Amino acid sequence: MSSTAGKPIKCKAAVCWGAGEPLKLEDVEVAPPGAHEVRIHILYTGICHTDEYTRSGKDPEGLFPVILGHEGGGIVESVGEGVTNVQVGDHVIPLYTAECRECKFCKSGKTNLCGKVRATQGKGLMPDNTSRFSIKGQPIHHFMGTSTFSQYTVVADVSVVSVDKKAPLEKVCLLGCGITTAWGAVVKQPGIKGSSVAVFGCGAIGLGVLATSALVGASRIIAVDTNPNKEAWAKKFGATDFVNPTQLKEGTKIQDHLVEMTDGGLDYTFDCTGNASVQVMRAALEACHKGWGISTVIGVAAAGQEIATRPFQLVTGRTWRGSAFGGVKGRTEIPGLVEDYLKGKVKIDEYVTHHRTLVDINEGFHDMHQGECIRCVVDMS
Amino acid sequence: MSSTAGKPIKCKAAVCWGAGEPLKLEDVEVAPPGAHEVRIHILYTGICHTDEYTRSGKDPEGLFPVILGHEGGGIVESVGEGVTNVQVGDHVIPLYTAECRECKFCKSGKTNLCGKVRATQGKGLMPDNTSRFSIKGQPIHHFMGTSTFSQYTVVADVSVVSVDKKAPLEKVCLLGCGITTAWGAVVKQPGIKGSSVAVFGCGAIGLGVLATSALVGASRIIAVDTNPNKEAWAKKFGATDFVNPTQLKEGTKIQDHLVEMTDGGLDYTFDCTGNASVQVMRAALEACHKGWGISTVIGVAAAGQEIATRPFQLVTGRTWRGSAFGGVKGRTEIPGLVEDYLKGKVKIDEYVTHHRTLVDINEGFHDMHQGECIRCVVDMS
Repeated sequence: MSSTAGKPIKCKAAVCWGAGEPLKLEDVEVAPPGAHEVRIHILYTGICHTDEYTRSGKDPEGLFPVILGHEGGGIVESVGEGVTNVQVGDHVIPLYTAECRECKFCKSGKTNLCGKVRATQGKGLMPDNTSRFSIKGQPIHHFMGTSTFSQYTVVADVSVVSVDKKAPLEKVCLLGCGITTAWGAVVKQPGIKGSSVAVFGCGAIGLGVLATSALVGASRIIAVDTNPNKEAWAKKFGATDFVNPTQLKEGTKIQDHLVEMTDGGLDYTFDCTGNASVQVMRAALEACHKGWGISTVIGVAAAGQEIATRPFQLVTGRTWRGSAFGGVKGRTEIPGLVEDYLKGKVKIDEYVTHHRTLVDINEGFHDMHQGECIRCVVDMS
Repeated sequence: MSSTAGKPIKCKAAVCWGAGEPLKLEDVEVAPPGAHEVRIHILYTGICHTDEYTRSGKDPEGLFPVILGHEGGGIVESVGEGVTNVQVGDHVIPLYTAECRECKFCKSGKTNLCGKVRATQGKGLMPDNTSRFSIKGQPIHHFMGTSTFSQYTVVADVSVVSVDKKAPLEKVCLLGCGITTAWGAVVKQPGIKGSSVAVFGCGAIGLGVLATSALVGASRIIAVDTNPNKEAWAKKFGATDFVNPTQLKEGTKIQDHLVEMTDGGLDYTFDCTGNASVQVMRAALEACHKGWGISTVIGVAAAGQEIATRPFQLVTGRTWRGSAFGGVKGRTEIPGLVEDYLKGKVKIDEYVTHHRTLVDINEGFHDMHQGECIRCVVDMS
């Protein structure tokens, strides 16, 4: 039992007060965890494009004021009544995709999208419809059920997983989103071994898809990015080829180029562009091989944007699908991913290009917009 | 050896001389089959919406003059050099989706789309780039590699399959397209047993999907059609529910209605609208259950039309796919389907609502536009 258990904690957090505003360092009061809730001392957090999507105001469902952040690593400070899956002192990763193991979704065996806390999470609240964060009595919204841009956060017990204490939290925090998303999007599709793969976008997710495709034994791995500096990155993560769509012959579509390069198209394609344009998603589908190509949408498109193609593309055997958090069930699968990292099978260190502290977290957002930043990890101390 | 073997045959055929024109009964000369070709005496043929699509001029790849028809049943009159898979006297069904068992596609184990004769078939020619049909020396195009609207036709040996002589050709001719397409679209997806299914459009294909869903043990089968007379048809073929989108409360989208009816959406949906509007394809996708719903496009959309949706629909676990000829490998699988028909497991007789002769084949096209026509079979004698 920690000395703070059962009491509110005052700590620092980066608060976004309104759409498009920079984050502001604030003294926040974090209430004790209620039943089936866990309060976590966050030590490190990554910054992801989804945080920026909401901060920028582009997310039509964004709520303010809010504490963003969903790629965290920390230590359990205290637990509420009825919590059995984690204990005080555990090293944990908060999960924006919960896993209750009881709802229709969890029991289906077909999806990782848990329904248990979905509705309140979407409203920026805990399952009892209130917030644990306040500033001078004013409630501050939670974000994605995680809010890792605070030194202390409260999450539902179905939204957190313990991991091996041997794993450095400043690294495995990144399993809270990007790397796991990429890993799952590949390993959940059984046919990638021996197949050809194209990956659109070489940010953290794209690099993760490249690395995982190489890990499972894809025969050819083509990386696609408009930033020529990404070629070296892509090759380091397992790409066998790199294509820059801006350097094709005038008027050549990237999908046509890839179909030609691969004698008919790719077995698997992945749209991993952070600020995904729907045209890239279309190109990824249309670069698939007739008869069997499968394209997976991972990116988030701008609000109101729609993907489109000729139905003939599907009738002739291409499949268009998507995945959220890589189809990974966080509580069940992340501990194994951490072990794979410790064994050197899964890369994490290689993604970390920038380090920031909580005080200069806005600089971390700035870093992200630079092409040479893969992941910036924020030290929350 | 028939007495006509090796010689041209004069016979009657329904020829379409130009886009939008009615078919015209003509005396056609049918050349003997070349190497790896088979000449078939066609006894019966169905009329399908794809014939009408090309006849009407809506098909941008339509070629004229042409002998349409792709749902035929007949008897092998003679074979060219090197033909081993069928013999003179065999009862056969021509296949618009060939199966060579040698090309990249056939060997992939992932698709029924054979590449062997695709290019020439698309040009309305036999694999040697010429036609076997002529009228007073003028070549007439083949259609879909089958051209069953002629009393005699020539097809590639990879485009024909022998079936049990006990099966009446006036019935099993329909396995050349619609019924097989519907059957395959269902049986090729392993999870339909115990699942919920919605079928958009209750023409021959839609009814076939309903019947096959019932056959494999779907738990709930919802038929959707704007024609109220289709309710009785749908129920006869296995539907548990019928929804008429034109009778919903003002402003209610069919997809929203279905999601509500099924507590979250369907496990599987099928777009089987012959003159498919892309809005129906979208509705079929969006009626799928979050996390696992799979929507299959079977219909053919008008040229230039595109399907669209929000990428969020895919990212949250819906899959958009299509199938051509139901994913069925005709040479390998149709003999078994014929046996299933003879055993009473697969319906065929129930689809035949209209009968015509070759002389009044245009009336058969007219029948097809009437809501009460499921399939019209033409006696070619």
